Amino acid sequence: MHFKRISILGVGLLGGSIGMAVKANASDVQIIGYGHRRESLDKAIEMGAIDGGETDLAAAVAAAELVVLCTPVGTFPMLMRELGQHLADGAIVTDVGSTKRSVVGLGETTLPPRVHFIGSHPMAGSEKRGVDFAKTDLFQHALCILTPTPRSDAAALSRVEQFWQSIGMTTTRLSPEEHDQRLADISHLPHALAAALIAMQDDSALALAGKGFLDTTRIASGDGALWRDILLDNRDNLRRSLFMLKKHLDKLERLLDSQAGDELAGWLDASAQRRSSVLARKLRDVLPD
Amino acid sequence: MHFKRISILGVGLLGGSIGMAVKANASDVQIIGYGHRRESLDKAIEMGAIDGGETDLAAAVAAAELVVLCTPVGTFPMLMRELGQHLADGAIVTDVGSTKRSVVGLGETTLPPRVHFIGSHPMAGSEKRGVDFAKTDLFQHALCILTPTPRSDAAALSRVEQFWQSIGMTTTRLSPEEHDQRLADISHLPHALAAALIAMQDDSALALAGKGFLDTTRIASGDGALWRDILLDNRDNLRRSLFMLKKHLDKLERLLDSQAGDELAGWLDASAQRRSSVLARKLRDVLPD
Repeated sequence: MHFKRISILGVGLLGGSIGMAVKANASDVQIIGYGHRRESLDKAIEMGAIDGGETDLAAAVAAAELVVLCTPVGTFPMLMRELGQHLADGAIVTDVGSTKRSVVGLGETTLPPRVHFIGSHPMAGSEKRGVDFAKTDLFQHALCILTPTPRSDAAALSRVEQFWQSIGMTTTRLSPEEHDQRLADISHLPHALAAALIAMQDDSALALAGKGFLDTTRIASGDGALWRDILLDNRDNLRRSLFMLKKHLDKLERLLDSQAGDELAGWLDASAQRRSSVLARKLRDVLPD
Repeated sequence: MHFKRISILGVGLLGGSIGMAVKANASDVQIIGYGHRRESLDKAIEMGAIDGGETDLAAAVAAAELVVLCTPVGTFPMLMRELGQHLADGAIVTDVGSTKRSVVGLGETTLPPRVHFIGSHPMAGSEKRGVDFAKTDLFQHALCILTPTPRSDAAALSRVEQFWQSIGMTTTRLSPEEHDQRLADISHLPHALAAALIAMQDDSALALAGKGFLDTTRIASGDGALWRDILLDNRDNLRRSLFMLKKHLDKLERLLDSQAGDELAGWLDASAQRRSSVLARKLRDVLPD
């Protein structure tokens, strides 16, 4: 581990799991957790996710070489404004937010030039919330997208990449703009769609829901306020994703209306095969050679 | 078990699982499987799903008290026309098809009056195909919808209900019309939507797919030809379901455009809660008192 002193701001599912994973992979790191609720911090200490807990931001980050923002994205503006005055020179700040244009813009304009901000999106999680659900292997084999800009410090970027890799993640780099565009398609739209699929059901239909329906809508179990922030922050891209989806649904309707059986079967099979390819690639990532 | 001689036409995932479940719950039943491929029949015998296999339809059903159609719905017209001449008086025919108006209509008009047709839709399955994936508990705790009409024989309906209950299913009754309408919303639309969600992805976005995306689209891994038949057969209801979904997506777009944060969070939370209720109800069904 390249960092000896790490501060985790917000010790919930993600923050707690990061702490546990770091602890599992390195013995010479001191991790300080920051949060409003003393019980959560004590619970995190008990679980071995952090070495100490602070409810005072200055105390939590004063000695940190790396600060990881794990609170909801909505808290970032205030946190970052306050952070700047307490950080040591050369400290690195990163985050786990699901949207990146606004967060990276905020980090680069709010934090003082003597510290480095690098945007991160470790793509792991759960519909569960809180440190009680934190686990050491949450990030194992998952992908972390780093979103550097021309203003990013190359050494800081490299160190943050190594940090995520040290807890088992594969890393890749995208611009904040590319990140938000692709995530709208592959994550934010599926979430919105799952919510709409539930909202449109009559109770009489919902009474017949089986395992397939529950799997399809699992991601819609997430926290509404958290996802509101994500969907609103990325609403321009999400609008485009919705437009694209509707075009594909229009195509489906044409196939149904014209009873184009072969084309419909081909369309369904093509999707099944694309999904199989994704699944096969993910299994290759997870399984040892 | 009320039936002593059962014929299963089509011994794949569903037919094989029915045979295994019957065998696990009754020792005095003889089950004959029917299929085109001798290897599949032999495999089903080896797995204990059937007692004997026939590639000749007359031989497969001549002595049957209950015939369960487990072949793709597309084969039903020909099968039913041929079946009629081979069945004993008073034999009961049911099926496992995912759409019911066309199947029940076919059963009631094609089979001779001296036998009874009762439509069934045991709501269990998998994206896997073939008898190799058959399992004894596939139907355990799942729901079977029976779709009687005014023409249905009351005693036959009751015996078919008891049959599904004997292999661990909960049964309910809907008219074929109600069945197809509700299934369009809760099953056929989610399937079509999962396929569209995959189809609309760029490769660059698909490269970032995580567990959430894979779960959301799992049902799209099914067989294209099988689902083509279901979607086309139920296309009028599916069109209505698509219309309803689009209305809900339009609402989402309005919330995004107006940045109505509270309303958006409420909409997301309401869906999360509805899903939790479904999940809680299903867990109550499965767990012992």
